[in-house]
Amino acid sequence: MTVRGSKMIKLTILSDEAHEIAKALRDKLANNQTFRRGDGQPLIELECVTHRPDAVDAENVTVLLADPDLTASIIDKCSTLVWCQSTWAGNAPLLNATKTDYNLTGLKGIFGKLMREYVFAYLLQHARNTKAFEQNQRAGVPKWEASQRIPLHGQTLGVAGLGSIGQALIPVAHALGMKVVGLTRSGDNIKGVEKVYTPDTITAFANACDHVVNLMPDTPSTHNLLSNDFFSALKSHSVFINAGRGSAVDDEALLNALNSGAFAHAVLDVFREEPLDTTHPFWHHPNITITAHTAAESQPSDVADVFLDNAKRYLEGQPLKYQFDFSRGY
Amino acid sequence: MTVRGSKMIKLTILSDEAHEIAKALRDKLANNQTFRRGDGQPLIELECVTHRPDAVDAENVTVLLADPDLTASIIDKCSTLVWCQSTWAGNAPLLNATKTDYNLTGLKGIFGKLMREYVFAYLLQHARNTKAFEQNQRAGVPKWEASQRIPLHGQTLGVAGLGSIGQALIPVAHALGMKVVGLTRSGDNIKGVEKVYTPDTITAFANACDHVVNLMPDTPSTHNLLSNDFFSALKSHSVFINAGRGSAVDDEALLNALNSGAFAHAVLDVFREEPLDTTHPFWHHPNITITAHTAAESQPSDVADVFLDNAKRYLEGQPLKYQFDFSRGY
Repeated sequence: MTVRGSKMIKLTILSDEAHEIAKALRDKLANNQTFRRGDGQPLIELECVTHRPDAVDAENVTVLLADPDLTASIIDKCSTLVWCQSTWAGNAPLLNATKTDYNLTGLKGIFGKLMREYVFAYLLQHARNTKAFEQNQRAGVPKWEASQRIPLHGQTLGVAGLGSIGQALIPVAHALGMKVVGLTRSGDNIKGVEKVYTPDTITAFANACDHVVNLMPDTPSTHNLLSNDFFSALKSHSVFINAGRGSAVDDEALLNALNSGAFAHAVLDVFREEPLDTTHPFWHHPNITITAHTAAESQPSDVADVFLDNAKRYLEGQPLKYQFDFSRGY
Repeated sequence: MTVRGSKMIKLTILSDEAHEIAKALRDKLANNQTFRRGDGQPLIELECVTHRPDAVDAENVTVLLADPDLTASIIDKCSTLVWCQSTWAGNAPLLNATKTDYNLTGLKGIFGKLMREYVFAYLLQHARNTKAFEQNQRAGVPKWEASQRIPLHGQTLGVAGLGSIGQALIPVAHALGMKVVGLTRSGDNIKGVEKVYTPDTITAFANACDHVVNLMPDTPSTHNLLSNDFFSALKSHSVFINAGRGSAVDDEALLNALNSGAFAHAVLDVFREEPLDTTHPFWHHPNITITAHTAAESQPSDVADVFLDNAKRYLEGQPLKYQFDFSRGY
């Protein structure tokens, strides 16, 4: 469905992070003339900011910026709703509702730029040996001393899973003088990637890489794909980053390979069970860095950016971006 | 002077890091056919690897890969020397010698790619709040918890000093979705830089930046240029990186601004006196990261790369790169 040009937006924010998102929105609107009329009146009004579905005036709401799980409990009452900008990429909780006669847009186009900062933060931290410098500084008597560094330039980054998020790593790798190789189901060529391997040639893939980032989705064919063959083919200086799904990794194979020195360090953001149990050996391993499934977690500021980008389109009567198609189910 | 094509190189390495450089060279030569004749014989032979000038067969050496300070004591005896590839960018110790009838080449073209890894390692470490995640992991009972992150994408990086090293930051900043502004003596436009400020407009420069990297050289006009006006115009989330010269920074102004919350974190690689005295307050400040003038310190592998690049030219009788001109003194 299309949206007609509207004079203004009376916005309801329904989210666990409603107040943080509202703050980011207000900051961005403060000095932005795009969202003011000629007479200075704002085109976007924050009518309701809440984390409680029952606080929303469901019968009268027209524009929602909302967590889909919270919205699911009131969506069928939102008879005047024209547009809901979701704070999630996927919108499963809204799939089974009766109401589908509104524009549902997802939170997209932001995960690649978050992921690339995560991946290169940890690759560069390792390359520059920042921990050793930190230890030198925080020693009882601080030490003025160089520590070993292995530059990324000239090295090869392997990316397993080359969808839009994986491809977002390519320009940064190139800007740092790295080559990129890939691992995908099809093995089809991808621009900027020297060679694309398939699961059949996973050992050759690992052999070709200095460091590997896994971004493969959770499908039956990726389960335990990263096992002994893969980890033992890495290099003693390799960093392995898992920011795809925990199910792709054979945990025991990873630990064995790390303990035998087959590779240098693992940075893990996703696990078979989350949150990762506090007794899991990953937590206490000196060569494992753990983050809490936050690699590409959107920030209130990102949500505000995607909303405003679409709000401009809404006010101009243009089609919205990242629209959910109820008939196709995605 | 030009070099005639030579059948092979008998190489002497004279350096404090002679063995590390020799290892890097051997590794790179192991699988490289460029430096083998058709019959498989190597075109480069490591004849002498030492850190002691008196161990060099000075009268017969033809090709040196050497620290210029160590070389200075024997250079006048090296009557058959054709080429000396220095391990330093500058070659001051060899300036005053009588002997100048040889090719002296500097170590260049590598500092930009080292510097960009340093700068973005620390900017991304801050952006991704890696220390908070590390603390969560290493807590008695590990914490599965998100910590605040402020993405670099959409932010503005200020680079004070836009020579070849400063300009090497630009493609990486752009690949991460950052804008770049600059501060130079001339204020002339530079490709990829949105706006170039001058010392007269340093406050406007600081105002325009989310983060600032200083790479200005040590000249009278840069002394104490980064003082109260500059630091107090930064933002509360700003990171300031000094990898230029310590003399550009007013230490007390930096500390005052940091303590008052005018900016978030300083990453300092250079100081007024080096090594930095162990009692200097910088060492123990929680919001200062110290490295030991190692931001763009060449690695044995870099030295080997520059040598091999020139060795190929030497063997082919081509002009060498990064030649020192004795008549001009640089």
